[in-house]
Amino acid sequence: MPKGSDGANQTKAVVLLSGGLDSATALGYAVACGYRVTALSFRYGQRHRIELEASRRVAHHFGITDHRIVDLPVEAFLGSSLTGQGEVGKGGVQAGVIPATYVPARNTIFLSLALGVAEVLGAQAIFIGVNAVDYSGYPDCRPEFIGAFQAMADRATKAGVEGVGPRVEAPLLRLTKGQIIQLGSRLGVDYGLTSSCYDPSESGAPCGGCDSCRLRAEGFAEAGVRDPLLVRA
Amino acid sequence: MPKGSDGANQTKAVVLLSGGLDSATALGYAVACGYRVTALSFRYGQRHRIELEASRRVAHHFGITDHRIVDLPVEAFLGSSLTGQGEVGKGGVQAGVIPATYVPARNTIFLSLALGVAEVLGAQAIFIGVNAVDYSGYPDCRPEFIGAFQAMADRATKAGVEGVGPRVEAPLLRLTKGQIIQLGSRLGVDYGLTSSCYDPSESGAPCGGCDSCRLRAEGFAEAGVRDPLLVRA
Repeated sequence: MPKGSDGANQTKAVVLLSGGLDSATALGYAVACGYRVTALSFRYGQRHRIELEASRRVAHHFGITDHRIVDLPVEAFLGSSLTGQGEVGKGGVQAGVIPATYVPARNTIFLSLALGVAEVLGAQAIFIGVNAVDYSGYPDCRPEFIGAFQAMADRATKAGVEGVGPRVEAPLLRLTKGQIIQLGSRLGVDYGLTSSCYDPSESGAPCGGCDSCRLRAEGFAEAGVRDPLLVRA
Repeated sequence: MPKGSDGANQTKAVVLLSGGLDSATALGYAVACGYRVTALSFRYGQRHRIELEASRRVAHHFGITDHRIVDLPVEAFLGSSLTGQGEVGKGGVQAGVIPATYVPARNTIFLSLALGVAEVLGAQAIFIGVNAVDYSGYPDCRPEFIGAFQAMADRATKAGVEGVGPRVEAPLLRLTKGQIIQLGSRLGVDYGLTSSCYDPSESGAPCGGCDSCRLRAEGFAEAGVRDPLLVRA
């Protein structure tokens, strides 16, 4: 199991960690690159709150001692099926159609908070596990969005203006779900610790029918790897 | 005193309202333009928390019934003299020097949350009272930043992708403090309800010596208007 080292001069990174498959892989990637990682998770009224427990397990697995879970009362002012309004879609992802599970401005909000943390820490990178291949319906998972966020960030902060602002790194952006799982397996990610389901049971067992469970199953099939979550269940 | 009307078909706007002079003027401007306003304020561990009371008074003055004060636990992960770390600067604003009162990524975070609210409401505009003239030290108060945020927002959200995302409006961007006060006075802003001081006394009286108090005094002098806050004190 890889462990982050504690060198004071180690280059720092902020990693957005939901506890799902993609962000766990992004964390594994950042750790493998030698970054001293601060992991950032959000409690934002999501229906699948169990993913926060997954984020703790994944952070512990990689020896991350600075894992911050931040309360965001967005359920008070945002609306989405992931925050209990409307139904979680089970009809599959369709090209050009934005799923009902989309949370307004979610990645913008998460990256903005990560940008603040990164500036305080003097971090050189912000890692986000967005992926444009299997989630093409989400506007804030596309390369255009990441590039535009970077351009904005370079004008937003003291570090950005001074030319030493953090880079937004999206190492999974153009990978298929199967490629992500293959990469993560090499990097020591234990996918049995992650949680992907939008609508898990009380015990945390995946429903197997939501879009996220379906994409996960297709990814493991593509990678030719057994999903440890299903083996254990 | 102008009052917002309640028409269901009225064009909506989200206004970032700190309770200071600039945001009060931006609110007066949005109301004068006929927008149905949702005002958004943040409790983020700021030393000058008294400005939230000012935001309530200003919102009430303009008849805003949807005023949301959102708790952001940023003091847990951001550092700035405005959140109790370090000293509030009293040495005046210097060209090219970023003041100690700068909060990392603050306007980025506030605009991102406003973007989420705007998308849920179907609002066509987000108003922010940033001003590049008297606060040139803050990176996130410059036209380049506002333009880059707009470009990012147009790629971030469902509404943006569909071409109906909100415009970020910064009507005070290129005005001097004196011009802002002249404009606001015409728009019915009662500056006696606002709070500008970074370091007020327990009773809320301005210190008179911080950068914000000094800029405010210079602005009233430039506008040739008496500051009602000082007349009352």
